[in-house]
Amino acid sequence: MKIEQEIERRARQVEGALEDYVPRRRPHGLSDAAWHHLDTGGKRIRPALCLIACEALGGEAERALPFAVGVELLHNMLLVHDDIEDGDTVRRNKPTVWKAYGVANAINVGDYLLARAFAAVLRSPVEEALRGRLLEVFTATYERTVEGQALDINARSQEDFTVEDYLRMAMLKTGHYLVLGMIGGAMIARAPEETLACLRAFGESLGPAFQIRDDLIDLTAGKGRGGVKGSDIREGKASILYAHALSHAAAEDRRRLIAVMRAARENTSDADVAWAMDLYRRAGSMRFAEERAEALVAAARGSLDALPGDQRATLGALLTHIAERTT
Amino acid sequence: MKIEQEIERRARQVEGALEDYVPRRRPHGLSDAAWHHLDTGGKRIRPALCLIACEALGGEAERALPFAVGVELLHNMLLVHDDIEDGDTVRRNKPTVWKAYGVANAINVGDYLLARAFAAVLRSPVEEALRGRLLEVFTATYERTVEGQALDINARSQEDFTVEDYLRMAMLKTGHYLVLGMIGGAMIARAPEETLACLRAFGESLGPAFQIRDDLIDLTAGKGRGGVKGSDIREGKASILYAHALSHAAAEDRRRLIAVMRAARENTSDADVAWAMDLYRRAGSMRFAEERAEALVAAARGSLDALPGDQRATLGALLTHIAERTT
Repeated sequence: MKIEQEIERRARQVEGALEDYVPRRRPHGLSDAAWHHLDTGGKRIRPALCLIACEALGGEAERALPFAVGVELLHNMLLVHDDIEDGDTVRRNKPTVWKAYGVANAINVGDYLLARAFAAVLRSPVEEALRGRLLEVFTATYERTVEGQALDINARSQEDFTVEDYLRMAMLKTGHYLVLGMIGGAMIARAPEETLACLRAFGESLGPAFQIRDDLIDLTAGKGRGGVKGSDIREGKASILYAHALSHAAAEDRRRLIAVMRAARENTSDADVAWAMDLYRRAGSMRFAEERAEALVAAARGSLDALPGDQRATLGALLTHIAERTT
Repeated sequence: MKIEQEIERRARQVEGALEDYVPRRRPHGLSDAAWHHLDTGGKRIRPALCLIACEALGGEAERALPFAVGVELLHNMLLVHDDIEDGDTVRRNKPTVWKAYGVANAINVGDYLLARAFAAVLRSPVEEALRGRLLEVFTATYERTVEGQALDINARSQEDFTVEDYLRMAMLKTGHYLVLGMIGGAMIARAPEETLACLRAFGESLGPAFQIRDDLIDLTAGKGRGGVKGSDIREGKASILYAHALSHAAAEDRRRLIAVMRAARENTSDADVAWAMDLYRRAGSMRFAEERAEALVAAARGSLDALPGDQRATLGALLTHIAERTT
């Protein structure tokens, strides 16, 4: 796959640049904690797509590198804070930052990574006015992601959480942020507004599709937290399955589901999790989620029709490749 | 006091502008939690000084308002995160955000306030190049504050914490950030670099002086956490008293002090606190701290000699007033 190789090549380039932006020798609780997290890896796909989109649209990828790094640091800052908020103890087979360094350091190192993210975007070698617009998009996207996270955190105790609530949360939390790198790369390449609008529409469909896929993976394969299935049920995380089952299950099942979701993680038994997974099947929630994810992927693909003609071959091929990874 | 009235007037102006930047009707966990904190008040001195410094240097204060709001939101974001990191349950006689809304919402609402802070600075009605420099100063100051916080968090378990470590921490955590508003106001007024350097030097002395005063207030009057004295000893917070006593107390006292500081808050008795406070007196740490604070205030005043002649009467009078509040 030529595109896959290009993503891999650009991801390695970003990987190599990270140390220029997050030095290894800052005080205890910063560099060590930051690199404890950054060294867990991750595929660096978001920043790779930033560079590739910039080049595909006729820009110089090198000029997009600081923005790409900023996107990757924002992504990692959000993961560090999310892991505390969700109480997750393991990420990519290593203890999460709060587990290894304590909650105080983990909050603070997230704040630090965000400072480095803004510093990276500020280093973008572009004219002042464009740098200002890059910062505006970066800040607004960061804010929407945080807003989506607020909906996510507080959905956990909500008895009337609907599929619409879920989709709104997923769009805010993942939709804008998924394509932030590509939008920045496109802006640096001086792409026209219609290209940016197309990228936004693409993200608004594909982000929620990714999120739904994530919900399904948790039930079918486990999220890589030691391969345990049903973590979302144990944690009481508001998934699309939960939202759908709430409005499609019988009253008694509904009550029991809410009780299972509300129970503290350590009070949720394997039998509770198995029961909820079975309910998701019986209530048609699994099939509903699969179909919704497919429909969203189709919508994401459909949004590419609005790409200016000359960009179909370049950017369109890249986006189609990304969309296909969700099916 | 003419200056005090002017500070009060400008503080009220900032107060009135906050709602334009942090809307009241965002989702649960954002607006309500943010305003739970913002409504605890605070004197809004930092942003007031931003507007006053801008005007004193011949600029239009209105143009500095977004930056002033950004500084105030950064300040409050740091307080929300600090309260979690320190385990503080009360601020200005109200439950802290994490106590009222849970840790997950409190981390997230701090992140939200920071997004709003950057959005505010981005709204500064100044030319692109100056806005870029304002963002650079804002980001760098935020980063130094976080770096100081890392030193603070990790000093708690440090047996060889010195007065020099303390001063470095205090300078990073408070020195730059104390004068951030005034520096932004001065930049918007197009003040020359020597004025900015003078403001930086002023903050680098006065910030640590404030921090030492805060350490002393904790022992003499309590920090307004219900008026309880010695909270820093209960929390194991690395104060200048702790740093000084570590290198001036007898070996046995030193061992006991470390044990008291390391003990969990709920395992620290009133007798332990009284003993540590007495040790601080016996070891000369109280007197040392008072003298050091005075010396730093004098240094802050001395740094004003470098102000360009025509600024002595305006900015100099303001800064002298601020410095005097610490004595």
